[in-house]
Amino acid sequence: MIEDLVDRLRLLRTPGIGPVTFRQLIMRFGTPAAALEAVPDLARRGGGKAPAIRSHGDAEREIARVDKLGARFLALGQGLYPRLLAELEDAPPLLIAKGNLNLFDRQAVAIVGARNASAAACRFARGLAHDLGQHELVVVSGLARGIDSAAHDGALGTGTLGVIAGGIDIFYPPENQARQETMYEQGLVLAEMPPGTEPRARHFPYRNRIIAGMCGGTVVVEAAPRSGSLITARLAAEAGREVMAVPGSPLDPRAQGCNQLIRDGATLIQNAADVVEAMRPFESRLRSEAVPYETKYEELNGQDAIGLVEGLLGPVPVPVDEVIRLSGHSPGAVQMALLELDLAGRLDRHAGGKVSLRE
Amino acid sequence: MIEDLVDRLRLLRTPGIGPVTFRQLIMRFGTPAAALEAVPDLARRGGGKAPAIRSHGDAEREIARVDKLGARFLALGQGLYPRLLAELEDAPPLLIAKGNLNLFDRQAVAIVGARNASAAACRFARGLAHDLGQHELVVVSGLARGIDSAAHDGALGTGTLGVIAGGIDIFYPPENQARQETMYEQGLVLAEMPPGTEPRARHFPYRNRIIAGMCGGTVVVEAAPRSGSLITARLAAEAGREVMAVPGSPLDPRAQGCNQLIRDGATLIQNAADVVEAMRPFESRLRSEAVPYETKYEELNGQDAIGLVEGLLGPVPVPVDEVIRLSGHSPGAVQMALLELDLAGRLDRHAGGKVSLRE
Repeated sequence: MIEDLVDRLRLLRTPGIGPVTFRQLIMRFGTPAAALEAVPDLARRGGGKAPAIRSHGDAEREIARVDKLGARFLALGQGLYPRLLAELEDAPPLLIAKGNLNLFDRQAVAIVGARNASAAACRFARGLAHDLGQHELVVVSGLARGIDSAAHDGALGTGTLGVIAGGIDIFYPPENQARQETMYEQGLVLAEMPPGTEPRARHFPYRNRIIAGMCGGTVVVEAAPRSGSLITARLAAEAGREVMAVPGSPLDPRAQGCNQLIRDGATLIQNAADVVEAMRPFESRLRSEAVPYETKYEELNGQDAIGLVEGLLGPVPVPVDEVIRLSGHSPGAVQMALLELDLAGRLDRHAGGKVSLRE
Repeated sequence: MIEDLVDRLRLLRTPGIGPVTFRQLIMRFGTPAAALEAVPDLARRGGGKAPAIRSHGDAEREIARVDKLGARFLALGQGLYPRLLAELEDAPPLLIAKGNLNLFDRQAVAIVGARNASAAACRFARGLAHDLGQHELVVVSGLARGIDSAAHDGALGTGTLGVIAGGIDIFYPPENQARQETMYEQGLVLAEMPPGTEPRARHFPYRNRIIAGMCGGTVVVEAAPRSGSLITARLAAEAGREVMAVPGSPLDPRAQGCNQLIRDGATLIQNAADVVEAMRPFESRLRSEAVPYETKYEELNGQDAIGLVEGLLGPVPVPVDEVIRLSGHSPGAVQMALLELDLAGRLDRHAGGKVSLRE
């Protein structure tokens, strides 16, 4: 088991291997150990050089560090890993968790919104989180300023889970240190990045997909157009989860994002009862068995497939399904060719299952 | 033509003959004159005494009074009568209009809301009405305080129509006298009640059905739960028109009605463009020919039908369709029996095409 974790970490922390590539490798080769062995050859067949696979020692050091921090790893496809999150195509292969893991047993709902929200909206978020806690729901958010903090505070007594963009031991923003430390004790904190990672701009959308993906629904409270909260809402919708939004006056610019979400089909939320009603369809899915690695790909079609797939790709992202259709080859062969191009550093993977050739 | 108007007025102003009964009589007998002649017999067959038909002189006096006020009658099924309004089962058989009748040539949208609306909401309504005017839409409202007044003011330069609950010469609330007088000149004012009628509580729902019925859509701006504006919205929905609502913060009690409307399916409105988009399906219906009196009922089945229909009715309102089905008789026969009971003062007609026996 510990060896499996070491191999997982080595594979996952290898540059160029993201969650989708990781999943493709496991689906093809069965175990992290077998995937690690195959990677150099795959990359060479894709026309690149072998990626610098993370060392055994590096992985063991990270495991020891997580252990020392009082945290633990959760592996996709195993035991405690959040069921709904496992359904995402780009579910994190490993999460680092610190706090009360029993919170995973209960239905979760996300409350997200603007960092610079109005005092009234923060008060609303806190009250909503509190009331949802009374309904046994776990409140998930991102431990950011504004709405996130208010949501965590409101649900601290009943169960709240914070997903952070940096390492499990990093406090961002710094003024949230006390809140995050309290949640280690009374709630739960999740991180995808290795300990010590300072969050950068690109980490926040990754964090948002975890928030949206582990919850049956996401409530947006006060969000500006083109804000991170709307990205979370879009990710929730793409994952087939309930998108909910709290309306506001059209005269208030901070309400525009939520009002637009409602126009686009999000459920208008006025109180906790509205959320509970909207979340009802997800109660049963919490109990269902997720099967994250269900498909084994067919055998390869040989080197020809790579040339063909490469010829179908360009700098503009196209859906993998379309590449498969145009290629005339089996999905397994095309996926393998993509995997090889990917490991060779010649492929970019985009949202919505799209890929492009790296220029 | 003037004789037809006299007969219409005599029939309509006869106690116990409301818009639905009026329409039934015209559908059965073809003209107001023929209906007037038939009423006493019908009532007697229904088991009551003949209603006190309004005199020729009374009708002529009302016509002269309307003329002197600079207003005119519009008859359902004739010329200028608003097309969409004519589609209602309980469309007013006669309207009294004062102002610019050319406004009927353009698409109309209602803006309604709370009399005690916030200053911000009134400002929003005024701006919305102004912007809708720029899109050639006529803004319809009820000349009440608050949102109604703001909507009229915003559209005064482009075209606005006020429907009032009392007579065409009555100013209610009194402080709206100047506004109403301005609309006689620059807009249009409509009344269903005879001149001199002071509006009473029961008149306002009648007024609201005209507002909802003559417009392709109704926008509600700030409305409390169980308010008149929500009745207008319900009537609009029942007539198959677009229901639109302006959202607000759940923390603002005045936003609850609108937020609930949106939850129930109303289109969330943030600006004039949203309204224009929602109203697009109604553009063509403005031009279509309405045929208000399309059905002629079949011949009677005789006195038996009355006894049978009476036996099927009680104090609880039931749909006419159900009475027809249970009776085993033709729709024409049942409608006629109902008409006779109605004219005999023994029937009550309710919203949604329901009837009950008067106790």
